[in-house]
Amino acid sequence: MDIFVSLDLNDAQVRRLRVIAGLDTVHVAGFPESGEQIAPEFLRSEIAFGNPPPEWLANAPKLRWVQLESTGFGEYASIDWPATADRPIFTNLADFFAEAVAETCLAGVLALYRGIDQCVRLQNNGEWLGDMLRPRLRTLAGAKVVLFGFGSINRRLAELLQPFDCEITSFCSRWSADELDNALINADIVVCATPDTPGTRKTFGIERLKCLSSSAVFVNVGRGSVVDEAALSRLLAEGKIGGALVDVTEDEPLPSGHPFWEVPNLILTQHTGGGSEDEQDRKVDMFGANLERFRARHPLVGIVGLDRGY
Amino acid sequence: MDIFVSLDLNDAQVRRLRVIAGLDTVHVAGFPESGEQIAPEFLRSEIAFGNPPPEWLANAPKLRWVQLESTGFGEYASIDWPATADRPIFTNLADFFAEAVAETCLAGVLALYRGIDQCVRLQNNGEWLGDMLRPRLRTLAGAKVVLFGFGSINRRLAELLQPFDCEITSFCSRWSADELDNALINADIVVCATPDTPGTRKTFGIERLKCLSSSAVFVNVGRGSVVDEAALSRLLAEGKIGGALVDVTEDEPLPSGHPFWEVPNLILTQHTGGGSEDEQDRKVDMFGANLERFRARHPLVGIVGLDRGY
Repeated sequence: MDIFVSLDLNDAQVRRLRVIAGLDTVHVAGFPESGEQIAPEFLRSEIAFGNPPPEWLANAPKLRWVQLESTGFGEYASIDWPATADRPIFTNLADFFAEAVAETCLAGVLALYRGIDQCVRLQNNGEWLGDMLRPRLRTLAGAKVVLFGFGSINRRLAELLQPFDCEITSFCSRWSADELDNALINADIVVCATPDTPGTRKTFGIERLKCLSSSAVFVNVGRGSVVDEAALSRLLAEGKIGGALVDVTEDEPLPSGHPFWEVPNLILTQHTGGGSEDEQDRKVDMFGANLERFRARHPLVGIVGLDRGY
Repeated sequence: MDIFVSLDLNDAQVRRLRVIAGLDTVHVAGFPESGEQIAPEFLRSEIAFGNPPPEWLANAPKLRWVQLESTGFGEYASIDWPATADRPIFTNLADFFAEAVAETCLAGVLALYRGIDQCVRLQNNGEWLGDMLRPRLRTLAGAKVVLFGFGSINRRLAELLQPFDCEITSFCSRWSADELDNALINADIVVCATPDTPGTRKTFGIERLKCLSSSAVFVNVGRGSVVDEAALSRLLAEGKIGGALVDVTEDEPLPSGHPFWEVPNLILTQHTGGGSEDEQDRKVDMFGANLERFRARHPLVGIVGLDRGY
């Protein structure tokens, strides 16, 4: 078998992958981008590990399985498959990033509550405000938290919040607009951790964001499309929302000139929420375990429904 | 009775204090500093609420009780009392700041682990690194944490760390140097939350700091004197310690030119760890409750031993 590998691995990780692959051929392809000409090795491969350009997939006759290196797969949902094609199985890294992303959520919220972002900026300027900062700080204990989406990230976040004795309200895929709006009115913190689906897109438009109080913190670690970014920026700039942690945006990298760069009390974590020093090692482990299942014709872990959207 | 009030209160808080004081006279004195001439109202007062200049105290004949607005009282330990003086009782705000300071500890550690400080700096520069940041990030789950001092702050921090399943080792007032050094060698995180006493001063000198690994995070939220600041700065600059959260320093405000302003991977929170928007309201509440005890000749809450140091 041929395995086409298109994720960023160091030499040791590639060596380990070759050991895992055994007699199968591993093609290490770097990081091909959309618009690049389809690699000949891709056309020969039964398996792809990484996130290849979506338009390559409909034209790869031998491809049987794609192990994505992400949880999200929105870019693969609209592939124009030939009518006669045997579509490959797609697996993603569901749950893989939950610990890291939940920790980034808590890190960002606590940073806003305890003034870490302000202190970093002051330190950059060599400026000491000290006591003057104290009345701007808050404690998280007892806060009212709305979790929008209750997959592995927000479930883990709820665990991390337990010692803070927060009042948590969570919304899963079947949510009512009235219930959500009512919860937002009293919320101190809202955390969106949802995939990009027609049902989540622009859930947080201007009217819904206006439910939030001027001290509320809005967190988005799911997909950028869930929120109207212009509306969020405006309400932050006007002080009508207290703060925001934004890990994901509609366009990444965030274009220069986008209001998120300048807006006050917004922490932009540049889609690093799922990152950790052992991330790529763990991806190789995951792939190896799924490859064993694939060879043994056992069900793969993390199979996604491209049409369902998660 | 006369009550001398020298802490920063807004008009509403002063009004509430006057209600609490009833027929007693409240002197609102602003924020007198060391070296200022002793206020005549102070000489008439039986009670002081706030932290008056230490040198005033030995010369206040009527003073019977000082309610400090801090937990620390090192500046009052070396007052040169007249041999014949009836020393006033001192009460402090022990435990009052535990929630806020423990949250600042966790905020700072998570900021360093999840790259919040780096992201704030990048955002300031309009720079997107995204994926390149991910291998620099860590997760807190399972970390080895050494708590130096196990008063209300570190006890609360231990609670906040419970969902992270950290391996926690704590050291109270009777600690052995060997045990501490051994714990430091394997530590991911060290949190100092101790008062300034002869027994804690310079506990973390260059030799002990060298026990830490190049990925370890050093946290000080107790008093600046516990650590050799020059040594900590040097080891951070040389990459021999991974990061630091410093809330307290030997000189505050931190002098310009101090290495803490520039050293990499150090977050300086400017002695705001105990701060919160409701801090002064809660101080007035605490004082009111102790004032009732004082009038009823019941034992006051938070009596400190000036000689013992905590």
